[in-house]
Amino acid sequence: MELFYAYDSDGRHCRLDSDESGHCVRVLRHRVGDEIHVIDGCGTMFRCRLTDDNPKSAEAGVLEAFPGWGGHPYRLTVACCPTKNNDRFEWFVEKATEVGVDRIVPVIGERSERKVYKTDRAYRIALSATKQSLKARIPEIAEPLSVKDFICRSEPAEQVKESLKLIAYCFEGDTRRISIQEALAASTATDITILIGPEGDFSPEEARLAIEHGYIPVHLGASRLRTETAAVVAATAVYLARG
Amino acid sequence: MELFYAYDSDGRHCRLDSDESGHCVRVLRHRVGDEIHVIDGCGTMFRCRLTDDNPKSAEAGVLEAFPGWGGHPYRLTVACCPTKNNDRFEWFVEKATEVGVDRIVPVIGERSERKVYKTDRAYRIALSATKQSLKARIPEIAEPLSVKDFICRSEPAEQVKESLKLIAYCFEGDTRRISIQEALAASTATDITILIGPEGDFSPEEARLAIEHGYIPVHLGASRLRTETAAVVAATAVYLARG
Repeated sequence: MELFYAYDSDGRHCRLDSDESGHCVRVLRHRVGDEIHVIDGCGTMFRCRLTDDNPKSAEAGVLEAFPGWGGHPYRLTVACCPTKNNDRFEWFVEKATEVGVDRIVPVIGERSERKVYKTDRAYRIALSATKQSLKARIPEIAEPLSVKDFICRSEPAEQVKESLKLIAYCFEGDTRRISIQEALAASTATDITILIGPEGDFSPEEARLAIEHGYIPVHLGASRLRTETAAVVAATAVYLARG
Repeated sequence: MELFYAYDSDGRHCRLDSDESGHCVRVLRHRVGDEIHVIDGCGTMFRCRLTDDNPKSAEAGVLEAFPGWGGHPYRLTVACCPTKNNDRFEWFVEKATEVGVDRIVPVIGERSERKVYKTDRAYRIALSATKQSLKARIPEIAEPLSVKDFICRSEPAEQVKESLKLIAYCFEGDTRRISIQEALAASTATDITILIGPEGDFSPEEARLAIEHGYIPVHLGASRLRTETAAVVAATAVYLARG
C-alpha cells in the first residue's frame, strides 16, 4: 500500500504538492480515474480517485475518509537533546515515527554540545516514515528550545493529573529511579512526555527542575545507551506497553 | 569510562592491536603505569596497568578481572535478513548491540533483494557499540546463510525445551500470532531466537518450515515497521522484559 500526502484537503478534495504529484504520476504512473490513498498528515486517510494527473499538482476526489487511521491509543511527546552527529538524531526521528510518536521536541541542555538545530530535514524524514509505516498523522517537530524552558512551559506537578512525565537520566548511584516499564504500568495516563538528555547528561539543576515540575526519574535498563538509542528505546517501551 | 579491546589476553596480560593501541597511546595519551580498562570481547573486563605504551602494540598487566561484566541474563540470537540499504542493517547491528544481543545472523530469504552480505563492517560496528555501551562481550556476527538453512540447523520442535524461538512476520489476516510481549511472558526460557524477514516478508514455505521447527509466530504491534526497525524493536522487547 502506497500513501500520498496532501498538503491541502477539505475532506472532499485532496491536492498533492509537486514532490508527491511527481511520485504519483511520473514514478508510479497513476492516471485520472485511478484509486489512490492519501493522508492529510493530521490523522485522516482518504481513499480517493485521481481527478487531475498533472505531475506537478495532482488532485484527487475523496471516496471515503478514515479518521484516526494508523493511530495509537496515547499521545506521546519525546523531548530529546539533538546529538553532535545529526544523522543520529534524524535516525531517532525516523524510528520514533515508525513506532509511534506525536510530538518531537529538540531540546538544548546546559551540557549539550549541539546548541542549534534546524527542523526542516527532520520534518521530511518524519513525513516519509509516517507514510512508510502506514500512519495518517505526521508527528509535530517543534522548534528547539532549552531544556529548562521546555520543563517550565509544562504544567507544575500539582496540576498534572492526566499526564505522565518521565525524565531518563544517568546520574550514577541515584537510587530513586524506577524502570520506564514500572512507571508506565503504575499510571493510566494517556498523555505521556519523555525527556532524554544530551551525551553529557542533564545538569543537576535541570534534573531538579524537572522533578519539581512533576517529572518522574526513570532508567532504561542496565545498558549505557546513546542519546538517540535511549529516545527510541523509550518510545518503544511506550509502544510495547500501550500500543 | 573508556574501554579498550584486547585481541589477545591470557587473563594476566592484555595486548591491544594497532587501532586500539593508537587510540590508547596517541589519542588518549596513556603512558606506562596508567590504569586502563580492557575487554576481551568474550565477556570479561580487566582493570589493567599499562606496561608498554607502544602506539602500535600496547600491552597491559591485569590487576583485576570482572567476568560477565555488562552482561544480560539471557542469550539472544537475532536472525535478520539484510536490508537493500546496507546502512540500515548496520544501524540494526549497532542498536541491537547497545540494548544487548549475543549473536546476529544475516539470513537470506527467498524474497530477499539482497542475496549476499559481508560481515566485516558489521563486526567493527558491533565492537564499537560494545565498548560504547559498556559491555565486555562482542556479539557474534555469523556468516550469512539462507533462512531455510538457519531454521533447519536449529533443533526440531520436540527437542526445544529451554529455548524460545520466535518468528515475526506480516501475513495479513493471520490470526494465530501473539504479541512478542505475550510470547516472552509465557516462557521462562533464557535462550531466545528471533527471526526477522526481508522487506518482502518470508515466503509461506519459510514460515511453514519455521513453525514445524518450533518457531512461535509473533507480531510486533500495530505499526508496519521496516525490517531493521522490527529487529531492534524485537531486541528491545527482550531487553525490557528480561534485562
